Amino acid sequence: MRPIIPNISVDCVVFGFDMKKLNVLLTERQLKDPKTDEIIFTDYTLQGHHVLEGENLNEAAIRVLRDKTGLHDIFLEQFHTFGNTDRMLNERDILWTEKIYPMVAHHVVSVGYYSLVDSATVKPDQAHQQTKWFSVEDLPELGFDHAEIIEKALYCLRVKLSREPIGFELLPEKFTLSQLQSLYEAVLGKKLDRRNFRKKVALMKYVIPLDEKQRGVAHKPAQVFIFSKDVYQRTKKEKLDFSI
Amino acid sequence: MRPIIPNISVDCVVFGFDMKKLNVLLTERQLKDPKTDEIIFTDYTLQGHHVLEGENLNEAAIRVLRDKTGLHDIFLEQFHTFGNTDRMLNERDILWTEKIYPMVAHHVVSVGYYSLVDSATVKPDQAHQQTKWFSVEDLPELGFDHAEIIEKALYCLRVKLSREPIGFELLPEKFTLSQLQSLYEAVLGKKLDRRNFRKKVALMKYVIPLDEKQRGVAHKPAQVFIFSKDVYQRTKKEKLDFSI
Repeated sequence: MRPIIPNISVDCVVFGFDMKKLNVLLTERQLKDPKTDEIIFTDYTLQGHHVLEGENLNEAAIRVLRDKTGLHDIFLEQFHTFGNTDRMLNERDILWTEKIYPMVAHHVVSVGYYSLVDSATVKPDQAHQQTKWFSVEDLPELGFDHAEIIEKALYCLRVKLSREPIGFELLPEKFTLSQLQSLYEAVLGKKLDRRNFRKKVALMKYVIPLDEKQRGVAHKPAQVFIFSKDVYQRTKKEKLDFSI
Repeated sequence: MRPIIPNISVDCVVFGFDMKKLNVLLTERQLKDPKTDEIIFTDYTLQGHHVLEGENLNEAAIRVLRDKTGLHDIFLEQFHTFGNTDRMLNERDILWTEKIYPMVAHHVVSVGYYSLVDSATVKPDQAHQQTKWFSVEDLPELGFDHAEIIEKALYCLRVKLSREPIGFELLPEKFTLSQLQSLYEAVLGKKLDRRNFRKKVALMKYVIPLDEKQRGVAHKPAQVFIFSKDVYQRTKKEKLDFSI
């Protein structure tokens, strides 16, 4: 095992979409009194860990995702680095660091990454039972500066989605236009007009209609679509323009 | 003097516009043989330094700008963090680190910031004579991974400019529409159609025409404009939409 670098870490914000809302994966953190076994506090944190000696930042993020959630080969992007000196100085964090991680530095700079998965199919496995999905609209009590990290990640995800069709990472392979619209609404945090949305999608050459309908639904089954990364790469236009 | 954190640094990419091209501020790095005074190599680096104990990342970036360029109170934004283990391992960097900074770590994670200034008026002062402007199209030999850092900064600047009118940070207070167009062309790296450009600008409520013309020009003087941050803040629309 390579030693950890005590003052540099990565934190992964795993976003998931469940066809209704945008969720984020969090890990329970529970501090118990070692003598009485009494719970001192319970809260949640992002999946994070220190960078190891000889490890690139991206490698650390991939390792953290695999070790803490079982997820691998998923969309992963660095978005911001958090390095305020007070980011680990609230009361619970001080207790936690003293009791559990006395070897780490008091000023840890953390490089933030976000990931996108389809949370209807990707569930934390048995090995990661303390890991749960929470709606971004209704987060539990969070440790460290993780509320700020999630807020920034969501902002960066929105900016990214306004430039690139990364939302498809959050959907199953086949999806309906209503599901696609729900996804955009969940990420952008606002309702979109159904007619305008469909007009825009009709112009996306990389959203391909199949000769196939939804299965196992109570209502009239809708047509299903797939996203083609290949077509996107070959038809995308550089958006190097400016806004008004 | 507070001690430095040996494995965390900040690097500042200072962009300047001189009414023709987009430039970046670089500092000469020269290694001499201490015995013979012979020059071993000369190249250029970004303005950077280690983070100090007890210092926030933003504070470090502000300090580096002030100490290395004399610049202060300018636009400054964190854009990406560079932490590959091989980022300081090319031949010149190894020599430099061994001779000049034997106390720093071999794996330094550097948080990148970019700044925007009007390079026609802001010049490195006497105290920073080794600091010079270079066109982003024609960069000299660079140390460390600074070519990669500049490339990423330029990409992030373009993305930012496509969402927010930050280009005004690169212009003098009063400017003509031709100068504004040159700025957008220099940052985006492409020619824009004059008529379409003027149509777009006419819709920007925050670009205010003055009853005043250019002075001291050989050609027919053009009308001058100012940018109002106040009007921008009060008229901007959230661009939470998606692209096709």
